[in-house]
Amino acid sequence: MSLTIKLQITNNLNLKLGTIKKSAYTSYSTKIRHKPIYHSNPLISTVYKPTMHVDGSSSSSFSIKSSLIDPDGGTLVDLVVPESERAKKKSEAEAMPKVRLTKVDIEWVHVISEGWASPLRGFMRESEYLHSLHFNCLRMKDGSVANMSLPIVLAIDDETKERIGSSPNVGLVGPDGDLVGILRSIEIYKHHKEERTARTWGTTAPGLPYVEEVITPAGNWLVGGDLEVLDPIKYNDGLDHYRLSPKQLRKEFDKRQADAVFAFQLRNPVHNGHALLMNDTRTRLLEMGYRNPILLLHPLGGFTKADDVPLDVRMEQHSKVLEDGVLDPETTIVAIFPSPMHYAGPTEVQWHAKARINAGANFYIVGRDPAGMGHPTEKRDLYNPDHGKKVLSMAPGLEKLNILPFKVAAYDTLEKKMAFFDPSRAKDFLFISGTKMRTYARNGENPPEGFMCPGGWKVLVNYYEGLQAEEASQQQAVLTT
Amino acid sequence: MSLTIKLQITNNLNLKLGTIKKSAYTSYSTKIRHKPIYHSNPLISTVYKPTMHVDGSSSSSFSIKSSLIDPDGGTLVDLVVPESERAKKKSEAEAMPKVRLTKVDIEWVHVISEGWASPLRGFMRESEYLHSLHFNCLRMKDGSVANMSLPIVLAIDDETKERIGSSPNVGLVGPDGDLVGILRSIEIYKHHKEERTARTWGTTAPGLPYVEEVITPAGNWLVGGDLEVLDPIKYNDGLDHYRLSPKQLRKEFDKRQADAVFAFQLRNPVHNGHALLMNDTRTRLLEMGYRNPILLLHPLGGFTKADDVPLDVRMEQHSKVLEDGVLDPETTIVAIFPSPMHYAGPTEVQWHAKARINAGANFYIVGRDPAGMGHPTEKRDLYNPDHGKKVLSMAPGLEKLNILPFKVAAYDTLEKKMAFFDPSRAKDFLFISGTKMRTYARNGENPPEGFMCPGGWKVLVNYYEGLQAEEASQQQAVLTT
Repeated sequence: MSLTIKLQITNNLNLKLGTIKKSAYTSYSTKIRHKPIYHSNPLISTVYKPTMHVDGSSSSSFSIKSSLIDPDGGTLVDLVVPESERAKKKSEAEAMPKVRLTKVDIEWVHVISEGWASPLRGFMRESEYLHSLHFNCLRMKDGSVANMSLPIVLAIDDETKERIGSSPNVGLVGPDGDLVGILRSIEIYKHHKEERTARTWGTTAPGLPYVEEVITPAGNWLVGGDLEVLDPIKYNDGLDHYRLSPKQLRKEFDKRQADAVFAFQLRNPVHNGHALLMNDTRTRLLEMGYRNPILLLHPLGGFTKADDVPLDVRMEQHSKVLEDGVLDPETTIVAIFPSPMHYAGPTEVQWHAKARINAGANFYIVGRDPAGMGHPTEKRDLYNPDHGKKVLSMAPGLEKLNILPFKVAAYDTLEKKMAFFDPSRAKDFLFISGTKMRTYARNGENPPEGFMCPGGWKVLVNYYEGLQAEEASQQQAVLTT
Repeated sequence: MSLTIKLQITNNLNLKLGTIKKSAYTSYSTKIRHKPIYHSNPLISTVYKPTMHVDGSSSSSFSIKSSLIDPDGGTLVDLVVPESERAKKKSEAEAMPKVRLTKVDIEWVHVISEGWASPLRGFMRESEYLHSLHFNCLRMKDGSVANMSLPIVLAIDDETKERIGSSPNVGLVGPDGDLVGILRSIEIYKHHKEERTARTWGTTAPGLPYVEEVITPAGNWLVGGDLEVLDPIKYNDGLDHYRLSPKQLRKEFDKRQADAVFAFQLRNPVHNGHALLMNDTRTRLLEMGYRNPILLLHPLGGFTKADDVPLDVRMEQHSKVLEDGVLDPETTIVAIFPSPMHYAGPTEVQWHAKARINAGANFYIVGRDPAGMGHPTEKRDLYNPDHGKKVLSMAPGLEKLNILPFKVAAYDTLEKKMAFFDPSRAKDFLFISGTKMRTYARNGENPPEGFMCPGGWKVLVNYYEGLQAEEASQQQAVLTT
């Protein structure tokens, strides 16, 4: 029996909160009837959870919850082999036919192994692939549905397929030749690239970054199976400490005694419009009765397109935003979401939201044109900018997540600060897109005062200066050779 | 409480029956526990139907069922205005801004108005469109799901949109200028043709018949709303008596006291392979304990591609097949399914199945590559031929329909008849595709003996002879002018 509270909040800042569902696990709120009971371990709260039985009768039982929202499928998937078994599994894997992984494949291994894609336990077999491609979800054995909008698949070429032959298991080898994991009880099926692209992106126009760089060069077969990862995936790029797994995040939320976690997905530097929105969301949640809402500032860390700001620069910029006090470190957790980026708009935003359920967030902020980009061959947005939040609100399997749509923030030239766009005085507002922001930084121009905290802006300017110096020296090198 | 019987039938003819679900309404079967109780009206059976209440307790109630399977949404949609109200509604419609319909639009008006698309009550508004496009289903207010894999939409151009202005209702006008219906509480939204095509067909390659002939020439806006049809849609082509509505079909099944109805969708002439399959299905159903399974032979009657055999010829051919005794008229109903054809494979086959639920069929036969065609620009099938039945078996909202997949039938050159393909003696079998069959008929060649009943074959030969004579006279006309 979950407790459903319907709230329709009107506010001056145009933050539109829809119907808010609050599960019985949101135990700190004064509005919740069932009081939590704590174990001696402060990270684990034992929440009184009435259970609905199959016969329809309702009885009470105690269950241990380490978080605010159940992972999809009920249990967080964890496919990293325990240390004690690694040596044995490694020698077992050595004897299997090998599949060589690309950098992006490794990112997916990372994603699957830590349970971001729970209940998925490996690269998709054909049934899961078809479920995902046609219905954007997986159906569990008990009839329930988990959202799964992107096919998470591993491509192999004809030669690899032949090498595998009828072997039921394969060893997975990283780009550097290191043994990464095992895929068991495999199934090999055709990689229909055109259909996959059309159904995932809603276009097959040339110039989609993930398609051009990942799908087109990939093999004509897909191999699905149950994944085991021999060692936790590390990148050794100085950012691994930011790569908290869903399990670690859930623990952290409990440690901080969060009673609401709101996730903000981004792949761009944080400007003051983002900050306004995140801070405003926190205020709204406090007004709703939550006592300790925690922000998960969750930049995407996998594959991005060439002209996006690189991850290390973004992480440095995000640090400055917290240092400069634009966001409150006390109530913010910054971590990296290890998924590659598809730029697949309404289809991908479901993945972004779903993965955050598994990480323990029960609120998800969604803005204009999430995961969108310009049409690769036409002068327009690839997606209707409103479709992302609409599709998110209707997506099967995301019902338990509270979706927080917001109106777009823009630079208010009267107030000289970022503010929610007010259509009644549209001419006072300046829209500064990611592209425009990057152009400012690239040209060494300053954006309008109040657009971004100075420390954060400096990081970007330095990055582009370095990039230009590098480009100049490369041009010089070309000219002199 | 529905009664679920799991049957896995092995048979010599390779007809693979999967898990068979039998609802409590299948009341004639000896295997059903609850005995039906009949009213004096033999067309309406009152079936003892235990009802599951929300609190989970089970109590008994009586409900009147005029068919074997509930329509989607519980009630069959019927949007034809009662005769008594027509004059009033017509004069009301006269005063509204008008939308001019194409021939295919009229086919959709027909489909929607008779409830084939239940619970859809008009052309889709944006929310329904997005549900359909992304998730292949609609979600009801009670949380249940109805399958809806094709967007059923009405396109208008900029000029029409402007003419409508802010009017909440529009009058619908047929290609000949006759007033057809009303669309109320309308919503106008962008027609993203590329995205619609990509997500529906899984390709945007040029040469998709429905895209080229219907979508590309259509306007850049879609108008959704609640439909009212002023007169039942008639075509006056001598075939209207075959166009039984879902309501009429359900009545007919009751009149015949069917305890199972198995639907066969087709858009080609019936050959003996089809007949084998249909007769074999009947045998299997009898073996399962059904006493009076009825075949719904249900050719598609709307838009088809130019080289398909026209509807009137197909209907004549189907008549001959019954006359020649290949199918038993006693246990067969031939009717026209008024939908246009998309040739959208796994996405469209869901629509074909879903519409037959609404028509009262509780079994649906699906073969190789349903609703498929050759890739328009590449030398291959557009769809993986197995995906249709796989996707159908996992489609949300189709759980209550019994899907009957079958292996392909081919001409057995040893037995000199159509038979289920036996891979152990593959060389004895001859595959005669629709294209090949049409080529035979066009060239005046006879197909192998036993491929099709002579009466049916003659219809085809006559059609192609007539077509060639016409083409010749047209060429002559071109030459002499």
